[in-house]
Amino acid sequence: MSQLSVRHLLGIKNLTESDIYSILDTAAQFKDVINRPIKKVPSLRDVTIANVFFENSTRTRLSFELAEKRLSADVVNFSASGSSVKKGETLLDTVNNILAMKVDMIVMRHSSPGAPHYLSQRIPANVVNAGDGTHEHPTQALLDAFSIREKIGDLAGKKIAIIGDILHSRVALSNIFCLIKLGAEVRVCGPTTLIPKYISSLGVQVSHNVKETLQWCDVANVLRIQLERLQVKYFPSLREYSLYFGINKKMLDELDHEILLMHPGPINRGVELTSDAADSRQSIILNQVENGVAVRMAVLYLLAQQ
Amino acid sequence: MSQLSVRHLLGIKNLTESDIYSILDTAAQFKDVINRPIKKVPSLRDVTIANVFFENSTRTRLSFELAEKRLSADVVNFSASGSSVKKGETLLDTVNNILAMKVDMIVMRHSSPGAPHYLSQRIPANVVNAGDGTHEHPTQALLDAFSIREKIGDLAGKKIAIIGDILHSRVALSNIFCLIKLGAEVRVCGPTTLIPKYISSLGVQVSHNVKETLQWCDVANVLRIQLERLQVKYFPSLREYSLYFGINKKMLDELDHEILLMHPGPINRGVELTSDAADSRQSIILNQVENGVAVRMAVLYLLAQQ
Amino acid sequence: MSQLSVRHLLGIKNLTESDIYSILDTAAQFKDVINRPIKKVPSLRDVTIANVFFENSTRTRLSFELAEKRLSADVVNFSASGSSVKKGETLLDTVNNILAMKVDMIVMRHSSPGAPHYLSQRIPANVVNAGDGTHEHPTQALLDAFSIREKIGDLAGKKIAIIGDILHSRVALSNIFCLIKLGAEVRVCGPTTLIPKYISSLGVQVSHNVKETLQWCDVANVLRIQLERLQVKYFPSLREYSLYFGINKKMLDELDHEILLMHPGPINRGVELTSDAADSRQSIILNQVENGVAVRMAVLYLLAQQ
Repeated sequence: MSQLSVRHLLGIKNLTESDIYSILDTAAQFKDVINRPIKKVPSLRDVTIANVFFENSTRTRLSFELAEKRLSADVVNFSASGSSVKKGETLLDTVNNILAMKVDMIVMRHSSPGAPHYLSQRIPANVVNAGDGTHEHPTQALLDAFSIREKIGDLAGKKIAIIGDILHSRVALSNIFCLIKLGAEVRVCGPTTLIPKYISSLGVQVSHNVKETLQWCDVANVLRIQLERLQVKYFPSLREYSLYFGINKKMLDELDHEILLMHPGPINRGVELTSDAADSRQSIILNQVENGVAVRMAVLYLLAQQ
Repeated sequence: MSQLSVRHLLGIKNLTESDIYSILDTAAQFKDVINRPIKKVPSLRDVTIANVFFENSTRTRLSFELAEKRLSADVVNFSASGSSVKKGETLLDTVNNILAMKVDMIVMRHSSPGAPHYLSQRIPANVVNAGDGTHEHPTQALLDAFSIREKIGDLAGKKIAIIGDILHSRVALSNIFCLIKLGAEVRVCGPTTLIPKYISSLGVQVSHNVKETLQWCDVANVLRIQLERLQVKYFPSLREYSLYFGINKKMLDELDHEILLMHPGPINRGVELTSDAADSRQSIILNQVENGVAVRMAVLYLLAQQ
Repeated sequence: MSQLSVRHLLGIKNLTESDIYSILDTAAQFKDVINRPIKKVPSLRDVTIANVFFENSTRTRLSFELAEKRLSADVVNFSASGSSVKKGETLLDTVNNILAMKVDMIVMRHSSPGAPHYLSQRIPANVVNAGDGTHEHPTQALLDAFSIREKIGDLAGKKIAIIGDILHSRVALSNIFCLIKLGAEVRVCGPTTLIPKYISSLGVQVSHNVKETLQWCDVANVLRIQLERLQVKYFPSLREYSLYFGINKKMLDELDHEILLMHPGPINRGVELTSDAADSRQSIILNQVENGVAVRMAVLYLLAQQ
């Protein structure tokens, strides 16, 4: 298996195309492993990994934890609730304390954009960003790319739409970086209020028309609408959002070609996707979750070699 | 070891007598295991089990977790607090996500009666009900049956009293199903307001007299009184409850035969049981806890063969 | 490796000088282990340890958990939040339930002084006190002694200052017992309101002058100021505390000899220590954390032989 150009996975922005392919190819091998009756490999038997989550995240934490256990790593979980963070300790002191206990890798979720970058410059351990505020969520973008490639092959030239709240989404930003590095055409689609002005400078198209976007694309990656955001006055209301941007099965069936439907979860059924769309033949939502474990195994495995 | 007629342990209601004996006999073998210096067996080495608890439960969760570890399974814990459930995800989506990460068995506690049954019809994994609302708590009934049988032999013809709040108790319902299937005579005893009208249709006797019930029975299984319930006006007050239905050592000593005293825990000392009763020679409360691990090992082991 | 005179680690008060040296010497061997590429030893492979924390403590819990995993013990975590403790169960019932599941050792943090002592007289398992209220925190004192000895050799005759809130500190009390048993000279230093009257009866000196104390000592162990306490009126204010008792790098540089600077963490940077002091060459704060795992491995290992 190949080597990465980085010691940390902070974001997709820092990866080369070759890094991304190394991760995707390695993940394919680990996907075979976790589909065998014996799902474990001894690869990281002498590596201790701390999952340091300053924000709640059941799904991502569980996926990393299973990836670590399948690699035979020793795992400790640290969550901010009830921790010394509340007692006024700095982030760097907290992490240095964990590292002093001979922890080799840190998987971190933090509400502040850049927190893992800050740490990575100050500590000897490998850092994996499991989501930093509205900034990046690189393993999600990698598992999305893996899932698309697995279904429809090489991403170069493919048309990928990212639909929903682009403004507050780390998933959108990491996906854009990843897809463009792999040569895909990317379009974002959503209400004006939920698309940041700078987005076209990243080389993506912008649309406010869902039907037209679905017709254009090969893959629609539909983001979760965070319900609490839509209660703010100047956004579309929840009802308006689902009326103008929600996707149902009928819309998929009326297209002149079949597209893949993706969602990073958790789904708000009836808001961004109806149930008949989420559960349709086109949906690869649960494949994404399955691939998440393989991709995270690949990331941890490759970083441990650095 | 024998086979079960079911793929899931949803409740005692669905089990045959032969299923119950398979579990009890297998549990006896696992009880030997956990009393050896080496308490582990490799039986479920390649099985991943998720403990999915939508309700808090330290004691049951710990017992399942130890059972899983003694069987060498890989274990992940998922609790509703801080999970995507709070973000509006459906139960089925949450569990399908967990399963997509290659989890083989789900041990679930949920506040809604029937939640594990609903799931079991929609997912490929084995489901173990660790308590669904006021409905069933099958592993508790099995460990209670195991504990009685271990002390006084075959349950057929034995007289078992279940004393306390029958109306809100999943322990009572599962115990009634289990004991009747095994041929025991069952009587429930408690204040009128805490015994549901339909209970006699299950083939049990009803009494409101504790002294007379203790004199009748071979085994008294005393349920926990949930203190918060007794603050509702139309129930007996806490003081009245403990006066008319509380059990003390003197009451046990005045019987013309020795009975076994059981309690599913946690005990409210001074309410349903005085300390001298709870700690008496007749009490097998801590045996129940010990047997719980062996019985849960048996359930997980047998379901994994299905 | 040698034997201890006790079956439980309840406090330093109960240990002999020889017990302390057994622990420190054993810890030195385990420190070698955790600095090897393969950090695990099979010593406690068939031992199950429950970490029972009735008070939050990320750092101590993590250190114990890693110590247990490095020794290959089976580990279960139990925290009071969401537990049956809230349902009115007694401490002894809670712990007896855990033990009935075949747990061999209990590592316990509790807010009540003496809780582990109470338990140790009533249960068959080994008990390790991981902090009981304002009373003792013996593994902290042992790792402090280990860290000093590692840097400047035998403690006999060394001058150790403990600076800060002595009144509310279990770290101070355990350190005083430990250092005096090992023949060190001990001085406590802090505002009058934060030093208990009885302290001199323990054989320690008392000072209210930080500069003079730093000049006197070989080692300064600076305690954490619990910010919430300094909001009470009759204590010095936070600003006053840091003005009169805070330690900065300049103060260390002006001494006529080099001293070691210690802190049990988490640090309030800018209160009891400035950042230039905490991160100075003299600081062995992260060494303390590292040594904590080795010392806890030694304690668990030696108690398991009893």
